This record gives sequence, structure tokens and C-alpha cells, in this order.
Amino acid sequence: MYDKRIGNQTIKPMNPPTILSTATIVGPKEGEGPLKDYFDVILEDDYWGQESWEKCESKMQEETAKLALSKANLADSDIDYIFSGDLLNQIISSAYAARQLNIPYYGLYGACSTMTESLSLGLMAIDGGFADKVICMTSSHFSTAERQFRYPLEFGSQRPFSSQWTVTGAGATILASKGNGPYLTYATTGKIVDPGIKDVNNMGAAMAPAAVDTIMEHFKDTGYGPDDYDLIITGDLGELGKEIAEELLKKEGYDVSKVFSDCGIEIFDNIEQDTHAGASGCGCSAVVFNGYIYSQIMNGNLDRVLFVSTGALHSTISTYQGESIPGIAHAVTISSTQD
Amino acid sequence: MYDKRIGNQTIKPMNPPTILSTATIVGPKEGEGPLKDYFDVILEDDYWGQESWEKCESKMQEETAKLALSKANLADSDIDYIFSGDLLNQIISSAYAARQLNIPYYGLYGACSTMTESLSLGLMAIDGGFADKVICMTSSHFSTAERQFRYPLEFGSQRPFSSQWTVTGAGATILASKGNGPYLTYATTGKIVDPGIKDVNNMGAAMAPAAVDTIMEHFKDTGYGPDDYDLIITGDLGELGKEIAEELLKKEGYDVSKVFSDCGIEIFDNIEQDTHAGASGCGCSAVVFNGYIYSQIMNGNLDRVLFVSTGALHSTISTYQGESIPGIAHAVTISSTQD
Repeated sequence: MYDKRIGNQTIKPMNPPTILSTATIVGPKEGEGPLKDYFDVILEDDYWGQESWEKCESKMQEETAKLALSKANLADSDIDYIFSGDLLNQIISSAYAARQLNIPYYGLYGACSTMTESLSLGLMAIDGGFADKVICMTSSHFSTAERQFRYPLEFGSQRPFSSQWTVTGAGATILASKGNGPYLTYATTGKIVDPGIKDVNNMGAAMAPAAVDTIMEHFKDTGYGPDDYDLIITGDLGELGKEIAEELLKKEGYDVSKVFSDCGIEIFDNIEQDTHAGASGCGCSAVVFNGYIYSQIMNGNLDRVLFVSTGALHSTISTYQGESIPGIAHAVTISSTQD
Repeated sequence: MYDKRIGNQTIKPMNPPTILSTATIVGPKEGEGPLKDYFDVILEDDYWGQESWEKCESKMQEETAKLALSKANLADSDIDYIFSGDLLNQIISSAYAARQLNIPYYGLYGACSTMTESLSLGLMAIDGGFADKVICMTSSHFSTAERQFRYPLEFGSQRPFSSQWTVTGAGATILASKGNGPYLTYATTGKIVDPGIKDVNNMGAAMAPAAVDTIMEHFKDTGYGPDDYDLIITGDLGELGKEIAEELLKKEGYDVSKVFSDCGIEIFDNIEQDTHAGASGCGCSAVVFNGYIYSQIMNGNLDRVLFVSTGALHSTISTYQGESIPGIAHAVTISSTQD
């Protein structure tokens, strides 16, 4: 029975689950960035008619799920599980979104690694024979994250150049046991890697070693290397973190430079949009994957992608108590064929 | 492939995973309660030599995992995944514990339903063929929860009679593909049920309808009823919540009175220990299950248990913004045989 695990951290499904549909909803700033044409809905403001930013974020997740369902001609009764999480304390965006959907619910917390955490658990549920269809989903919101993790926005705190801009966005993927692809063909689950960084304005550097660890483990477990992928894209390391990750991988003998990118760099024009080192937030890799990458696989521009969302697992309390920021990264291979 | 799902919300593994070992560590108050003989370690104070309550909680999880590993003669390299979560913002107790263990990590948030959430995902990972051994784990700490969710302890706020006392405790279960039992034979995953309650000092009432929903769904999906169980035990409804749940189940035609209990009632002597409506916290059902219930199954006093951890999925922000408290409950059947 213990037959779908290869190497130390990787699983290979017997019948790779297929992506039936994806959906994305983003905020106004994301809707002005270079990937604007790949998002389903661009909000005009960051309240969307709600009384608070938190309620807006929850509505974004709920509506993203409903949009993905309608694209696949499905009702919530067709879905066996929701796997979702977000950055807010007690993942309220996800819980209040799931309350509106009549579907068994698994709440997750992987910070900005949540998109690939949910995809790899969804893969297990389906290929294990426990589910036919699942929704994997996450969100973040610039204003809810800023006031929870950093300062009240009214304070007007100046952002250092190493800081990243939390994406306002929600992304959902519907996975199913049968379909025409693209397929989830591998998942490499990350261990926690803590390089000892305590600067909450330098999250890319805190997460880069975890991304490197998971990507290297994926290569070792599967026997693949950078040349076997059209794109290897990390969650949200930003410009500083991406540079560190690329350098560390090179030292270990893996030159990923030709195929390496980062969702936190793709989504904004960092100079024009004044986002400094790039983007972050659960929603960042969620909307880049479910919007841009999915469309590139569907139209044949990409065949095989290693998608590696990265998370920083600290809290304001742990930072205040002098703890460093543990990083984690989960990788999933998305392929136009079942290999 | 989609062959292990029965009814709407229940899964039945083909080869039920076995429990290899369990471990529990509790605080001083829990060590004075009626279940004191069933816990592995009772702390003398709620710091355990750490600088903060939060660091103590994280150490409790780490040491509980290590104790469960040593009882089963295993090293961390023998374990394929950790599934864990806790109540603290960004589940830092779990993340900092997992940092000390060199094991691929899935962070969960299910509030006080985390123990059964982790067990049901562990079941899927093993029976799906993705893992041979996993650790399922959670914790809570009275002082970290009080100051996060309610008031600073120094404030000396008076607790209403409907309030429950957060357990200081950590519990871990090691599941494996092979062994002599007890076995995990079913898992029923909960949907979110929100009865509209906004009183954070009456969590039992907020969670009771979710518990009832999951227990009834379990009966419908499996064809079993109260007579098929030696014990049906909810997570932490407390005295008020348990009464509501029993009443609601009776109205639906299920008389569970002969076999029904609640972890939040069992762990303290509510009059002697002045805990009001009972106990709560992720650690509550975790230590009652991994300590007391597991030992009763092992010594033959219980054969078949429906274990239903219950969670309240709110945050201080959602309460402040006038939201009600959504409840969830996940059920797992633990049996001395593979049925």
C-alpha cells in the first residue's frame, strides 16, 4: 500500500488528479500590474461593499470558489472537500468563506505556502480514493495583513526596500479524479527550515533556504533537474529572496537560471508600482498560479511547471519574543501530460 | 479509484491505519484532575523553564512528539509527515515544535477540532499509500489562550458560569500502515455550522450544532447508531454544550445518553476545580484521547469509540466586527478491531 512515495519527501499519484477549473479575484493594484489580463475579476476598491477589509477578503474567497464551480459547471454538492487557509489569525477569511459553502472543510495554515499545501493534500484525497472533486483555495488582502502583522495603515509607516507588498487576491483550483489535464503529477512536502532571520521586513531571505531545500529534495527524489521543467516558480521570495535561492541552488550544482521565476516578482512592476522587493501573501502565488500559469499551460506555452509556494511561519507574538522566522515550501508539479 | 467514500461526508479506509503509540504532557491543574493517572508527564508549573507561556506550549508539543516516538522505538526519520495545529495566531506552537523535528510538515487550523482533523488527514495519507507513519498532534495552554482571546491574566477578569477553562496540554498520536491496533476505521469530516451565537464565553453552545451535524451524518453514512459504540465523546462542548447536543440528537431520533460524554467534562472536576462549564482548547480532546481513551481501548474497557473533536472558528477580530462563531466537528472511529 505504501507505494506512492518516492525518495524522502515526494509523492507520485497513481492516477494524477486533473485541474477542472481555476478562478481568481484580485484588488485594484494587482489589476494594474503586468498580469492583469489573466485575472477573472478585478475589484474597484478593497472593500467590495463590505464593512471591513476582513469581510472583503472572506467574500473574495467565497466568490472565487463559486466562480471556479461555475466555470466547471459544478454545484457545491459536487465537491467532497475544501482545503483552504489564509494569513489572518484563526484563518477567519477561509472559515467564513467555507461557512457559505455546504462542503466538508479542512482548515490549513501554511502562511504563503498555503496554495501548494492545499493542492498536495487535495492530490492525496483524490488519488487516495477518498474524494472525487475538491477545492483548493487561499487568499490574502494587503490591508488586513498590514494591520495585523505590521502597523495600522493610518500610521503611514515607511516601508524598507527589502519589504514585499501583500497581494489582495484569492485563487481557487478545482481538482478532480478524471479529466483532460493539466495534471498534478508530483508533490514534495517541505520541512521547516529556519535560517535565523528576525527581520519581518525581509521575508524573502527568511524563506529562500526553505525553497532551496524543497526544490533540491524534489530533484533528488524524482531524478529530475532544471532542464526537465519549462518553469520553476517560487511562491513569493521577492527580488532579494529569489537571488539568494538561485545562488544557493547554484552552489549545490543546480543552475535553474533559465527557467526560474518568482510569483512575487511577476505580479507587480516593482518600479512603476512602488512595491519595493516584490509581492507576498497567500494570494500572491494563488492568483499567479490560478490566473497566469494555468492559462500558459492551457494554451501550450508551458508544458511542465514546478510550483513552489513559500511560507514564513512566524507571528507578531513570536517576533516580539525574539524568535526567528521559520520558513517552509511545498512543491507541486503541474504537467500537461500525466508524467 | 473513488472507492473509499461512503455517504456524503465519511471515508472508510481499505486497510485501517493502526495507532502505534500516543503521548501526553499536561499542566499542573490537569494533573490534579480526575484523569491525572492517564497522562505521561505533569508539569510543575506552566513555564517549564521557558521564558514565555508561548515557548512552553511549543516545547510541550515538541516533547510530546519525542515521547510518542520513543514509546514506539522510532526516530523522526521514520515519520513521513507531521499533521499539527493549535490555537495561537499563525499556529506558532506547532510551527516552532515542527522546526525541532526533521519531518515534512502540514500545518492545520481547526481550533479545538484539530486532533480529529489531524487524525483524519493522517488516515488519508497512510491508507492512500502516501505515507507509512505519521504524527498527528495538537496543544493548547491556558495562559497563552487567555491572553490572546480574552483578557490579560493580570486583569483578573471574572469568568461567567458558561465559560470553559482552556486545557494546558499537548497530545500526539503516531499512526502507521501496519500494527495490532487500535485502528482508525472511519472518518467523518465536518461542514461549518453556525448557529449565530456571538458570546465568546459560551463556546459549547456555539459548537454543539456542529457536533450534532457530524454525528448524525456519521450515523447516516455508515448505518451505525448509538448502540454500535461503547463511547461517543465530543471534543469540548462542556456541560452546557453537551446538554444541547444530547437534546438535539434526541429530537432527531438518536438517543445517545447511555454512551455520550465530552472531553471538556471528563478532564476536570468542575466544582472542586472551579472550572465552571468544563474545559476547552485543542489540548483538551488531545490529552483525553491520547491519555485516557487510548488506555481504555488498550486494556479492553472500550472496543469502539466515536471521537468527535469540536472547534469554534472565530477570532478576536471577527468577534469585534460583530460576526457570530462558526462551529465545526470532525469525527473518527477508533476500534480494537478493523471494523
